[in-house]
Amino acid sequence: MLLRVIGIGPGSPRQITLEAVDAIGATDVFFLLDKGSRTSELTALREKFLTEYGAPGHRVVAIADPPRDRRPDDYEAEVRRWHAARVDAVRAAVSEHLRPGETGGFLVWGDPALYDSTLRILDQLAARDDVSVEVEVIAGVTSASALTAAHGIVAHGIGEPILTTTGRRLSATPAGADANQIVMLDSDLAFRETAAPDDLVYWGAYLGTEHEILVSGRVADVTAEIEEKRARARERLGWIMDIYLLQKAR
Amino acid sequence: MLLRVIGIGPGSPRQITLEAVDAIGATDVFFLLDKGSRTSELTALREKFLTEYGAPGHRVVAIADPPRDRRPDDYEAEVRRWHAARVDAVRAAVSEHLRPGETGGFLVWGDPALYDSTLRILDQLAARDDVSVEVEVIAGVTSASALTAAHGIVAHGIGEPILTTTGRRLSATPAGADANQIVMLDSDLAFRETAAPDDLVYWGAYLGTEHEILVSGRVADVTAEIEEKRARARERLGWIMDIYLLQKAR
Repeated sequence: MLLRVIGIGPGSPRQITLEAVDAIGATDVFFLLDKGSRTSELTALREKFLTEYGAPGHRVVAIADPPRDRRPDDYEAEVRRWHAARVDAVRAAVSEHLRPGETGGFLVWGDPALYDSTLRILDQLAARDDVSVEVEVIAGVTSASALTAAHGIVAHGIGEPILTTTGRRLSATPAGADANQIVMLDSDLAFRETAAPDDLVYWGAYLGTEHEILVSGRVADVTAEIEEKRARARERLGWIMDIYLLQKAR
Repeated sequence: MLLRVIGIGPGSPRQITLEAVDAIGATDVFFLLDKGSRTSELTALREKFLTEYGAPGHRVVAIADPPRDRRPDDYEAEVRRWHAARVDAVRAAVSEHLRPGETGGFLVWGDPALYDSTLRILDQLAARDDVSVEVEVIAGVTSASALTAAHGIVAHGIGEPILTTTGRRLSATPAGADANQIVMLDSDLAFRETAAPDDLVYWGAYLGTEHEILVSGRVADVTAEIEEKRARARERLGWIMDIYLLQKAR
């Protein structure tokens, strides 16, 4: 069976590619890996994409997320356990809802190659003896690109490398790879522990949506503003999606 | 004046966003920073975007690239000199062709935040006393996303960072940042000097075009194949655009 993993961009209704629109229109059954009501605005946008670009008669199947320990002692082991439970759930849903010759689709925020488990789940599904799976991936605009575009900046000095990392791993960035760091999945604003006062931070939340917030400047100057705006928005909306770029002072 | 820098994706006619299509349709004059006939197929695609999505009556102005030393002793100084000459050329073209109230546009392959000088040129233009410039950036799909999508892979192991770098800087990657490296602008296949035989390489050229070539596998197994396919395609087409992902053997 053909399963498509479709990158739908970082959260703006227009930051989706024509290729993704085509792919949505050519898919019979969409499987939604549901993260719950915490991100209900994003769920609404995903539904809008399906309504506007989906073929007549397409079906939508929600797959409930198995429970997950967000602060485990062994992070990687817990992620693997959770992935295995998700493989079982996806397999059951696909077997039940996808008829012979039909195409299944998974919508992924941003780009499917970055910090998203859908492809790992489908690889595990494909590795099982009893399932024949072909996977097609549609690239999407990353939240990193949305961040730099919103700030109107290049991500790096001339010819410099960029490290894309997570809040969890930020403090482990080796010297020499820390000139430009794009930090995702950071609920603790880990740069407060790692950045120097003169470093630059470009922070953005809810990128591409009506709630978009941008703050940039020297770490010493803007950290309090980021903390405050982040906390206030999170309380008001009930969820947050943010990302930032750190640049070492030159 | 308003100048838009529009990311148009890595080279496929469908890997452009709706936002970029909107932006092309709302722009009066497009300034093309011409790289010459070496990449004539890409030039043709850029023209196709303008023909299909441009507003009636839009104008196109080619700005010839000042000459550049591609193998200078001091790489950064030469890039800066070249940028200054481009600023002069862009300023002259904008002054001559953009009427009051009109919007100018620059189309950039991939995403404007990555290894492209357009934003740096416009920042330098905006910094001059006699020009009032507002810059708007439209994010695009990166060639890195096109690469990982074409190979159907996630760019990293669970939770791991990714270093995006250039062929020139690849050998300077610090240990600890070398688990996953996306290498751009590498005319010398520098991984031949840096990677271990068991490392994995995912290589792609002409991504998203009819000429797309993909090779992946252990470095020891596929390096010769990449060298050969790269050389043959480059000779046949007269140009090449390629990128690869290196993953350390686990």
